[in-house]
Amino acid sequence: MIPMVKRVSTGIAGLDEMLGGGLIAGRAYLVEGPPGAGKTILATHFAMAGVDRGENALYVTLEEPADQLKEDMARLGFNVGSGNFKIVDATPVNPERSVVFSESPDIEFGESFERLLNSLSAELRKRDYQRVVIDPITMVKLTVPNELEYRKIFLAFLKTLRRYNVTVLMTAEVEKSDVEKYLVSGVIRLLRVESGDKIVRAIQITKFRGSAFDEVMRPYKITNQGIQVFPEETVFI
Amino acid sequence: MIPMVKRVSTGIAGLDEMLGGGLIAGRAYLVEGPPGAGKTILATHFAMAGVDRGENALYVTLEEPADQLKEDMARLGFNVGSGNFKIVDATPVNPERSVVFSESPDIEFGESFERLLNSLSAELRKRDYQRVVIDPITMVKLTVPNELEYRKIFLAFLKTLRRYNVTVLMTAEVEKSDVEKYLVSGVIRLLRVESGDKIVRAIQITKFRGSAFDEVMRPYKITNQGIQVFPEETVFI
Amino acid sequence: MIPMVKRVSTGIAGLDEMLGGGLIAGRAYLVEGPPGAGKTILATHFAMAGVDRGENALYVTLEEPADQLKEDMARLGFNVGSGNFKIVDATPVNPERSVVFSESPDIEFGESFERLLNSLSAELRKRDYQRVVIDPITMVKLTVPNELEYRKIFLAFLKTLRRYNVTVLMTAEVEKSDVEKYLVSGVIRLLRVESGDKIVRAIQITKFRGSAFDEVMRPYKITNQGIQVFPEETVFI
Amino acid sequence: MIPMVKRVSTGIAGLDEMLGGGLIAGRAYLVEGPPGAGKTILATHFAMAGVDRGENALYVTLEEPADQLKEDMARLGFNVGSGNFKIVDATPVNPERSVVFSESPDIEFGESFERLLNSLSAELRKRDYQRVVIDPITMVKLTVPNELEYRKIFLAFLKTLRRYNVTVLMTAEVEKSDVEKYLVSGVIRLLRVESGDKIVRAIQITKFRGSAFDEVMRPYKITNQGIQVFPEETVFI
Amino acid sequence: MIPMVKRVSTGIAGLDEMLGGGLIAGRAYLVEGPPGAGKTILATHFAMAGVDRGENALYVTLEEPADQLKEDMARLGFNVGSGNFKIVDATPVNPERSVVFSESPDIEFGESFERLLNSLSAELRKRDYQRVVIDPITMVKLTVPNELEYRKIFLAFLKTLRRYNVTVLMTAEVEKSDVEKYLVSGVIRLLRVESGDKIVRAIQITKFRGSAFDEVMRPYKITNQGIQVFPEETVFI
Amino acid sequence: MIPMVKRVSTGIAGLDEMLGGGLIAGRAYLVEGPPGAGKTILATHFAMAGVDRGENALYVTLEEPADQLKEDMARLGFNVGSGNFKIVDATPVNPERSVVFSESPDIEFGESFERLLNSLSAELRKRDYQRVVIDPITMVKLTVPNELEYRKIFLAFLKTLRRYNVTVLMTAEVEKSDVEKYLVSGVIRLLRVESGDKIVRAIQITKFRGSAFDEVMRPYKITNQGIQVFPEETVFI
Repeated sequence: MIPMVKRVSTGIAGLDEMLGGGLIAGRAYLVEGPPGAGKTILATHFAMAGVDRGENALYVTLEEPADQLKEDMARLGFNVGSGNFKIVDATPVNPERSVVFSESPDIEFGESFERLLNSLSAELRKRDYQRVVIDPITMVKLTVPNELEYRKIFLAFLKTLRRYNVTVLMTAEVEKSDVEKYLVSGVIRLLRVESGDKIVRAIQITKFRGSAFDEVMRPYKITNQGIQVFPEETVFI
Repeated sequence: MIPMVKRVSTGIAGLDEMLGGGLIAGRAYLVEGPPGAGKTILATHFAMAGVDRGENALYVTLEEPADQLKEDMARLGFNVGSGNFKIVDATPVNPERSVVFSESPDIEFGESFERLLNSLSAELRKRDYQRVVIDPITMVKLTVPNELEYRKIFLAFLKTLRRYNVTVLMTAEVEKSDVEKYLVSGVIRLLRVESGDKIVRAIQITKFRGSAFDEVMRPYKITNQGIQVFPEETVFI
Repeated sequence: MIPMVKRVSTGIAGLDEMLGGGLIAGRAYLVEGPPGAGKTILATHFAMAGVDRGENALYVTLEEPADQLKEDMARLGFNVGSGNFKIVDATPVNPERSVVFSESPDIEFGESFERLLNSLSAELRKRDYQRVVIDPITMVKLTVPNELEYRKIFLAFLKTLRRYNVTVLMTAEVEKSDVEKYLVSGVIRLLRVESGDKIVRAIQITKFRGSAFDEVMRPYKITNQGIQVFPEETVFI
Repeated sequence: MIPMVKRVSTGIAGLDEMLGGGLIAGRAYLVEGPPGAGKTILATHFAMAGVDRGENALYVTLEEPADQLKEDMARLGFNVGSGNFKIVDATPVNPERSVVFSESPDIEFGESFERLLNSLSAELRKRDYQRVVIDPITMVKLTVPNELEYRKIFLAFLKTLRRYNVTVLMTAEVEKSDVEKYLVSGVIRLLRVESGDKIVRAIQITKFRGSAFDEVMRPYKITNQGIQVFPEETVFI
Repeated sequence: MIPMVKRVSTGIAGLDEMLGGGLIAGRAYLVEGPPGAGKTILATHFAMAGVDRGENALYVTLEEPADQLKEDMARLGFNVGSGNFKIVDATPVNPERSVVFSESPDIEFGESFERLLNSLSAELRKRDYQRVVIDPITMVKLTVPNELEYRKIFLAFLKTLRRYNVTVLMTAEVEKSDVEKYLVSGVIRLLRVESGDKIVRAIQITKFRGSAFDEVMRPYKITNQGIQVFPEETVFI
Repeated sequence: MIPMVKRVSTGIAGLDEMLGGGLIAGRAYLVEGPPGAGKTILATHFAMAGVDRGENALYVTLEEPADQLKEDMARLGFNVGSGNFKIVDATPVNPERSVVFSESPDIEFGESFERLLNSLSAELRKRDYQRVVIDPITMVKLTVPNELEYRKIFLAFLKTLRRYNVTVLMTAEVEKSDVEKYLVSGVIRLLRVESGDKIVRAIQITKFRGSAFDEVMRPYKITNQGIQVFPEETVFI
């Protein structure tokens, strides 16, 4: 008997359409793009789409301070004050000690992943979350410079998250993500294509296990209401 | 006296046609491609083509957890419940201890290949398998960073598999496969070619020892029934 | 309730227009460009735009000696003699001992950032500054060759500056900036595009958190009055 | 007095024509190409061209097992059963201990070349060989990672072979051959040029000391009778 | 009060025109180009333009022996015999011990810069020089492989030269100059552009602090009287 | 008083024409090119042009064995039997101990250059040579992996040769020559340009200190009489 796929909205209608209805529940996805591409905005859409449906969403911020992040989210009209929405400030400069990064560079190896996982597990056990954002995975990755070990740790990380049945969206700097693309269930790529004197923003799904999807590169815009994807239009490069 | 070649279907009609009837029995092949190219789906076709003919097929999964893999295979309509089909979960995060990867990074060197080989040999001695999938070979490769040693170990690995007279299909990440392409009997390449705003999927046989083959790049699609290759069509790039 | 954004002029009318009114107060920005692109001139515009409005501006010069810098600023007509404008000479060859760089290469690791921060904090506590220029961040960065540590230190650095509620402009050599682009709130890129026998200067905003902005590459000129940006024109490449 | 050049057929009529009659006797040549280019088939033509003329040919296989190699040669119609043809299995996984590769990675440095040379010399003293194939030189090369030492050892290797007055054909993986091209007497390059959706196979002589030669890239095919070169045709790229 | 800029002729009329009248006195400049571009000739023009005006010029040659250099200068018609012109042979093979390079590779780190500086300072104290050439800076740079240290040492070096109020022209191999371009006051680039079967020589000012300048790439020629720049012509590439 | 330049023929009329009459006596030149470009043939022309004029020429062969080299030279019609022509076999496999390369890899550093220099000096003191060929410089270079040391040693090497007033031609593999191009008095580049299915051979002078020269890329051919340069023709690329 073939199980039906439960779809999870990304909060961006055009992107859901490209995904054939949304992400597959209970799996982990990667959003990669250059600085200024809107990775954080996309991740916020995803989290808030859950909050708007009465789900609980956990947002782990690893580089931008939580207060500055909230400010930017609020300005885009997201309901950051909702009780269903929780931000964990895991930046290394969090005044109440970072939950992820060690003070000492010597004991960093791999441990940050374990700390992140512990902190996530603790939170996931407290409440019934449906969505988790990790924004970005980059710095945690840098604590495991050996590729083989990173793969092992990352797979273990995904495995543990699977146990809680949450849908996970991770962001990644475009130069720093490669291995992960093979290991997650799907990859959404944000691009900037210069054509003449214009920067055209484009979004593309390059991998989506377990589902058909729109493989075409589509334009998107960052507006005062966040990201808008145009799934009927094409990008000329 | 020239021995006749026994052909083995890949389970994909168009690909068999490109191969001049199928793979050559008893040899090892490599399928390489980027994330989302469908390497796992192609490997599943190969394994299931055997199962459908009453052969035994062994599928070693090294990165995607066996349960998630089965889910995706079932959704594509493959008969994963068949008694002739066996999945071995050799991911590093397998709860009943990984059959391949060591817990300790220090004793990894080359040993993972030996463990994989031992685990395969044990399984191959238990039952009369005709087909083996190793999906992907990548992480095992990473345990042998010295190229010379890797070549030796990989050749020994192929040699041992030859003894069991199984046809072997290995998948590989496209950036991580190079040496293997010289050592295996054939290479199937999955590509994504961007032309304008479209991703065109293409399949190409770049090496096939002991047989003539179609050297032309052909389009393929990933549908709800898996991969479909169009051996009469061409790809414009 | 969504907080209103306070805008801060860059001192260059065309650039303010591209930024939708100016930079966002209290955040940190990066200006990157090749040698001769005018990074120092742009930074001087930013500092002096504050001075002209009665604000206090602090200019930390890390490579060009303060006296030579002042000479060049004065020649462009900037009011370097204003009591609201303070230059700190943090070059390694400052005769009264450098405030930032250690004499000994052995104790450099990360410490330069701490020294820069201490020196900045001391100055920021003394007077109520609204604007800070760090020109360039490059050499300080080189004291932290480990990327993970650099990210941590840089984030801590930004965090501390946020406490003083100053708007910060950092310059960076184009080959040496990558990580920072992900960590700051905005990035202004100065380019030189060779077209035929001409060098066309172009300015582009590639990231601007919390605001809409003009994503198009615009021409600029360096004249005897400094930088002039043409926000209505486009650059053909 | 100028010595006359003795020409040695490659077994491929079109290639002999490109070479102005064949290789020069008593010298060493390199055939380089990507996986699947037909390096082994070309080397077999060369060896068998000798066998067909009553000469003795020695074929050292370093990666493909001798039995599998013979199978493929036989299928192409080559007379592998001839008493004049001898295959030495020097793969690292040869059951009767490899004649070339050490078991221990520690004592590998350069020694593999010595072992290969000793094994070759022993064989060359036993019988009067005119042709030697080394297929491929790659793994032996990897045992000497220092470039200066490799050059010295390789030159010594060529010098010794010259003493036996044999014509030598070595194959090499295209990414792994560079130094050798400067040290051998000639280089034959096998290429695959993708033009549109087609792979066009091309052969080119890029170096041939002591002889004029056809410098033009010519098409070739791999058929059921082996390689066929078209010395009158050209390749459009 | 804005100080007037004192201009210093390069000795090449067309280049002076591109520079808006000449270099700025008391600052340091870099000329970079490939082998054969004429860097040494340009530097000689600069030194001799001073000599012709009754100034003293110091020419430090670090790679080409002083006698051979003088021969080539004389052949181009330069007045190398003038009492105002002094060549210091700082090549590592100077018979009366090199003033710059140590015999021992172990004590090289940074010390060569100190030696060069000491030797320059001694000379600059002896006589009132207006112009200094360092041709090339490359080998001295190689003695400081750590980039951070190099920047510090180079800035200290420039600082010291500033004290003597000399205008400095340094030459650099094009592949070896990068950091310096950010640290000096101006950069002149010599290029060779191949167009069809021709080498077109082009000169370009890419940086010139404190002055407007011609940013266009202009053709130049090396004739029997040295370098001739055509500031009205353009280069088509 | 400007010294007259003494010109030295390269033995190739077309190349002499490109050089404005020939090389400058008493200086060192570099010929670089890919395998099969004819570097050795060009060097032989240069040596024999001296022999034909009654000068003495010394040819140091560092990779190709002297006997094989003589064979190829003779076949091209060169008078290798002349008493004025001396070949020194400095290959590492010279039966009477190499004059240049040490047996032990440990004592290689820089010493090979010293040995080559000693061996050259000994020979140059014995007889009055006008021309010296070093073919190729590559392996000697590899014995000095530190760039700074290499520059020093190479400059000392050139300095010593200058004392004997010989004109020196060195050959170099194209990938291995870079530093030398800045240090020698001239560079001749041999190229192969693929255009369609043809290899077009081209020769180009990229540097020639102390003389005007033809900067245009010119075609050349390798015929049964050696190299022929066409200084009136151009190469279309």
